[in-house]
Amino acid sequence: MTKVSEISEFDLISRLETILENNVTPNKDSKVELSIGDDAAVIGNLDNLQVVTTDAMVDKVHFVSDQVDMRSLGWKSLAVNYSDIASMGCKPIYSVVTLGLRADILVEQLENLYLGFSDLLNTYGGDLVGGDIVKSDTFFISVTVVGSTDKPETMQRKTAVPGDVIAVTGHLGSSNAGLRLLLKNELQKSSHFYEAHYMPKPRIPEGISLLDMGIKTGMDISDGLVNDLMKICVASTVNATINVDKIPVHDDLKKYFPNEYKEMAVSGGEDYELLITGHESLIRYISDSTDIDLHIIGEIEIGSGDVNAVDSTGARISLNTGGWDHFTEN
Amino acid sequence: MTKVSEISEFDLISRLETILENNVTPNKDSKVELSIGDDAAVIGNLDNLQVVTTDAMVDKVHFVSDQVDMRSLGWKSLAVNYSDIASMGCKPIYSVVTLGLRADILVEQLENLYLGFSDLLNTYGGDLVGGDIVKSDTFFISVTVVGSTDKPETMQRKTAVPGDVIAVTGHLGSSNAGLRLLLKNELQKSSHFYEAHYMPKPRIPEGISLLDMGIKTGMDISDGLVNDLMKICVASTVNATINVDKIPVHDDLKKYFPNEYKEMAVSGGEDYELLITGHESLIRYISDSTDIDLHIIGEIEIGSGDVNAVDSTGARISLNTGGWDHFTEN
Repeated sequence: MTKVSEISEFDLISRLETILENNVTPNKDSKVELSIGDDAAVIGNLDNLQVVTTDAMVDKVHFVSDQVDMRSLGWKSLAVNYSDIASMGCKPIYSVVTLGLRADILVEQLENLYLGFSDLLNTYGGDLVGGDIVKSDTFFISVTVVGSTDKPETMQRKTAVPGDVIAVTGHLGSSNAGLRLLLKNELQKSSHFYEAHYMPKPRIPEGISLLDMGIKTGMDISDGLVNDLMKICVASTVNATINVDKIPVHDDLKKYFPNEYKEMAVSGGEDYELLITGHESLIRYISDSTDIDLHIIGEIEIGSGDVNAVDSTGARISLNTGGWDHFTEN
Repeated sequence: MTKVSEISEFDLISRLETILENNVTPNKDSKVELSIGDDAAVIGNLDNLQVVTTDAMVDKVHFVSDQVDMRSLGWKSLAVNYSDIASMGCKPIYSVVTLGLRADILVEQLENLYLGFSDLLNTYGGDLVGGDIVKSDTFFISVTVVGSTDKPETMQRKTAVPGDVIAVTGHLGSSNAGLRLLLKNELQKSSHFYEAHYMPKPRIPEGISLLDMGIKTGMDISDGLVNDLMKICVASTVNATINVDKIPVHDDLKKYFPNEYKEMAVSGGEDYELLITGHESLIRYISDSTDIDLHIIGEIEIGSGDVNAVDSTGARISLNTGGWDHFTEN
């Protein structure tokens, strides 16, 4: 085992580059003309539009470096950025990664982190073209991803209109279950909840298909369904009403959290599923004609940025949970 | 004064966005179609090639947060990235910034940081289109910049050939002088050395002109002239010989550091000047026909990655200074 302080920056970059070379399947439609090793990477002409997003993960805030599985952390730190690309309906093209490293971080840990990057690149495409390595008292990973589309518009938040229905992919709340179990030291590796928390699946193919089939409004659920739906409502100047009984949840979530699963699905966060709105007929058509796992959970109404919740009987629900400080009964 | 822990992330982003809105002159040829406020920013079709670079600055490594002028830090953290774009011969198009924030950092400090970003954007162009804000025990700033060119190639490191001469822009060593004075608490604000250390001028127009006029080999000097020249030599599989008496230095550097100025110019670092190679006739033509401040300091020879130094008498020089561990007399 080798501490990063024991080898040169050049040797460290070389070892991490080797992990990518040995583990990432070459991308036959790669746009990269010059990768790691110059002042900047060079990329050929992209399609019409490009999108850019950046998200960082920080030790003791988003993970605990001496407990986390570094390969899972590599997956997750790139996946949360890919999820933003998916939410615009775009494909990932290239990424850069900056590592802030404590002197005692092991090179082998970083090689595992890069194996996690490799896993994600092999699954969803795109190239990791470079980055920066700096010393830091706090270990952090800062990722920037550029994606593109040949469509004239991306999905956005500001295009929801009254009459749209609201739909989500997959199921919600399981990542929050993973976090709760982790905090109690009860999270089993490779369990459903572990996968949901550490290895979220960015909805890249789903996002591309949704944009392609005419969906204009979308985002990914990172801060919890209601928090994120409120962002669409504010950006579009509309209200939303969701039926909490229609929110898709995994059977394991109901089984292990019978009293809390609805709250977890509504406000848990880090689901990285897509949240979209559109004409009901279009969304039903997409749901019927593709294998995208879409669930209609509510509708968009005239308003100015509020989210309301009801249950299947039509009764108004007031859920007040962590991070959900905007959502009080009114 | 307001600590970042006292306001919401939404309000913090809003205050920083306001700084940009009020201080950055709108870019008439901006490619940005959607900026801060969605999952990702959207950018229209760029020119043929694009380049991407990322560089982070970390508290207690690159600066000391309770001593540094935040406006200068904002300038510098974006400028060091712009310098990489300049070294490829490209123009900056857009940037994203991730801030890792301690709870006690003041909002007003961050507003000053964003004033520094604004200063640089107003001087060199490009748009700041978004970012991420995360909690961190260590304050850091991670920046990614994308640039582009309508030329078929960028400047690179691997294209130097024997017979090329080596040239640099501006003058070297003054940033290192600023650092030395800073460490002795003797750095006067707005002195020449302060400007050199905290407000480096990325050579954007010079880089664009050099590529346009046919220069193929270039990089920026961030780790010291010899360290960086060695990177060109390794990438191009050539040797280099520089004449230390031809390295341009500022009069103040000679005056205040009469015994050390040559060493500082050769290995000081953080100069952010351009280092190029090319046919002597082309470089002399550029120097004569433009106002680029170019100085020929040596030549490229057959070899495999070594840098040698001589003085004006032709005598071989062995300089052995900090960070310069590869350069021993042989």
